[in-house]
Amino acid sequence: MALNLVSPPEIHSISFLGSTKSSSFSKLFPGGFVLKKDCGTTFGRKVQCSAQAPQPPPAWPGRAFPDPGRKTWDGPKPISIVGSTGSIGTQTLDIVGENPDKFRVVALAAGSNVTLLVDQPTVAAIEAGKDIALANKETLIAGGPFVLPLAHKHKVKILPADSEHSAIFQCIQGLPEGALRRIILTASGGAFRDWPVDKLKEVKVADALKHPNWNMGKKITVDSATLFNKGLEVIEAHYLFGAEYDDIEIVIHPQSIIHSMVETQDSSVLAQLGWPDMRLPILYTMSWPERIYCSEITWPRLDLCKLGSLTFKAPDNVKYPSMSLAYAAGRAGGTMTGVLSAANEKAVELFIDEKISYLDIFKVVELTCEKHQEEYVATPSLEEIIHYDLWARDYAASIQQSSGLSPVLA
Amino acid sequence: MALNLVSPPEIHSISFLGSTKSSSFSKLFPGGFVLKKDCGTTFGRKVQCSAQAPQPPPAWPGRAFPDPGRKTWDGPKPISIVGSTGSIGTQTLDIVGENPDKFRVVALAAGSNVTLLVDQPTVAAIEAGKDIALANKETLIAGGPFVLPLAHKHKVKILPADSEHSAIFQCIQGLPEGALRRIILTASGGAFRDWPVDKLKEVKVADALKHPNWNMGKKITVDSATLFNKGLEVIEAHYLFGAEYDDIEIVIHPQSIIHSMVETQDSSVLAQLGWPDMRLPILYTMSWPERIYCSEITWPRLDLCKLGSLTFKAPDNVKYPSMSLAYAAGRAGGTMTGVLSAANEKAVELFIDEKISYLDIFKVVELTCEKHQEEYVATPSLEEIIHYDLWARDYAASIQQSSGLSPVLA
Repeated sequence: MALNLVSPPEIHSISFLGSTKSSSFSKLFPGGFVLKKDCGTTFGRKVQCSAQAPQPPPAWPGRAFPDPGRKTWDGPKPISIVGSTGSIGTQTLDIVGENPDKFRVVALAAGSNVTLLVDQPTVAAIEAGKDIALANKETLIAGGPFVLPLAHKHKVKILPADSEHSAIFQCIQGLPEGALRRIILTASGGAFRDWPVDKLKEVKVADALKHPNWNMGKKITVDSATLFNKGLEVIEAHYLFGAEYDDIEIVIHPQSIIHSMVETQDSSVLAQLGWPDMRLPILYTMSWPERIYCSEITWPRLDLCKLGSLTFKAPDNVKYPSMSLAYAAGRAGGTMTGVLSAANEKAVELFIDEKISYLDIFKVVELTCEKHQEEYVATPSLEEIIHYDLWARDYAASIQQSSGLSPVLA
Repeated sequence: MALNLVSPPEIHSISFLGSTKSSSFSKLFPGGFVLKKDCGTTFGRKVQCSAQAPQPPPAWPGRAFPDPGRKTWDGPKPISIVGSTGSIGTQTLDIVGENPDKFRVVALAAGSNVTLLVDQPTVAAIEAGKDIALANKETLIAGGPFVLPLAHKHKVKILPADSEHSAIFQCIQGLPEGALRRIILTASGGAFRDWPVDKLKEVKVADALKHPNWNMGKKITVDSATLFNKGLEVIEAHYLFGAEYDDIEIVIHPQSIIHSMVETQDSSVLAQLGWPDMRLPILYTMSWPERIYCSEITWPRLDLCKLGSLTFKAPDNVKYPSMSLAYAAGRAGGTMTGVLSAANEKAVELFIDEKISYLDIFKVVELTCEKHQEEYVATPSLEEIIHYDLWARDYAASIQQSSGLSPVLA
């Protein structure tokens, strides 16, 4: 199967089409989705969810084997790149340029076409039986309940191109059925890793844009600071690998060298390590199940002796209320995960535009998810996913307007 | 195939039968095996070898897949334990006791039977087509050139039961052909990790018996201090996984949590982590390719946050001349690796008995290997391997007697 690489820039600006409302969350789940309303530094700590949406088929059920009859090519493998001008797209083009005997680009789509997702990327590629390299979180976090059954039906592989899920994917190669016990996602801890919690009310936009390890866009850098990036990755890991939320952990690992780990049933831990460099996860989506030789000049070897030490600490729930919010949304499933992601995206935008404070990001996300309980859909259509994405952005913006949240915390 | 577990105590006391001398090393390899004679703290640094013995087929050529038609059992898998009273043997029996539905012991051999290796263990098991779980280094280090072609002929799997090679074996599960680029063996650094080199001349036996992480027998604890254990593991890794010596590295990792690593062609590093606990590698030889559930009460989970940090440093060639000696012996291959191992075993015995000093261990091994160049055999028979093992022990002892080496360095 040919491989489509879907990268973040276009997904950011996809068109969300019409909607169909469905049965309400409270009817479906009498236990409800409890979001604590008090939005101090303790908020998010009592987020609970007593019910779950049906589990869609994971992309990789705790193991990863190539199909015996997997298609191979006599010449270079054809690659379509959706989002060729973004950072992932350009790195993909560089890799193709370095390996003309192995890959060839057969289609490119650049720019910010608002109808891109619906017109071609993910859904059309899946329906055409093409493997998907996924460099954006939103496709699965919002679209998981729709995209995963579709991929399952068309026997399409979804290959993760972000460093954490690529690490997990690399670690589960060759694992036998039922061997995966836990996923351990590593997190840098972001810009405020070493800040005391009570200083977070003073955060300025420039503070949140200082990532210790990775050079990335503004939105994802703020997400690293809030740890929403990791909360969203927990949901992504659930959809990709079928792990229960109780079996997905976050560990703060400031050096970002261990990209993530898995624990097997017999208590062994397997980890994937490397420099913080997006090229490897991108390359692996293209080469999988093979490993392609990379020059040690242009792809420097990991040198643990030079690094000296790798450190770890447990994440602080008070500093990162995003974790409780993401786990609760993940457990609810259905449209709730897309709403969490969209509300966060809008909240980060408001923060970067200096319309709300740093701590307001958590408030906005929490209040939007809480409101969404009224219309939550457990098994949404694509239209419903898109509708609630738009709704969440509108609602998040309205909180700012109606409550008068401002960069100075109320 | 049933699985035989060969553990160290018996291998220590195997009978070495008659010998047939073969063509000399100097005739076979005009370039020679250069061992620097000056035995100061710099010795071993100029060890070179310009030629190699033919490479026997590795047990796992950089990858590990179960055969498609691999035998399975309706009931518990039959296990024979050779060395049931040693530490590995008793831990194996414990694992069988915890999993009576999965394993059953069909044969036990205890005690120090000098004819054990030749009578039954390794060779007979291989000829009977039984998989071998290898908990001793000597079978491969001395016997590799004979045992590996035999295992290859009988399609027998050799499953490593020591923590480092088990880690590598776990990391290469599912790797495609040709994907393995390097092996990175971790070493605790032993008792003298933090000693300055110039203090090593004052080492007492009690100092060398203090291992920082693992609770083991005297011989292996001294081997950790000298780093001969890791040098021998380099040779074992070469025979097990087919890696060239240039592609096997040693990294000092004092916490012994990362048990070893592999680097793939695309610059990714895969590692296996766990507490320093021999049960996991033993269990994995028995369960492979499956992963058996272990209770988190009796097999505590790895807790990186509790550990806080993992550290790494490059090994010091001056502090550990064992490395140069082992790499040179490994590159020579044939009978040289068995001679290195046997000379080291005798030297450690002399040291523990306070007949030679700590630094004399390196001298004795170096002089024995150097002497062996005269009679080196590139493709030895089992009898030749056994003969030169005995010869090396005798010669090592004679160095002590003839040179008057004493616990106080000459």
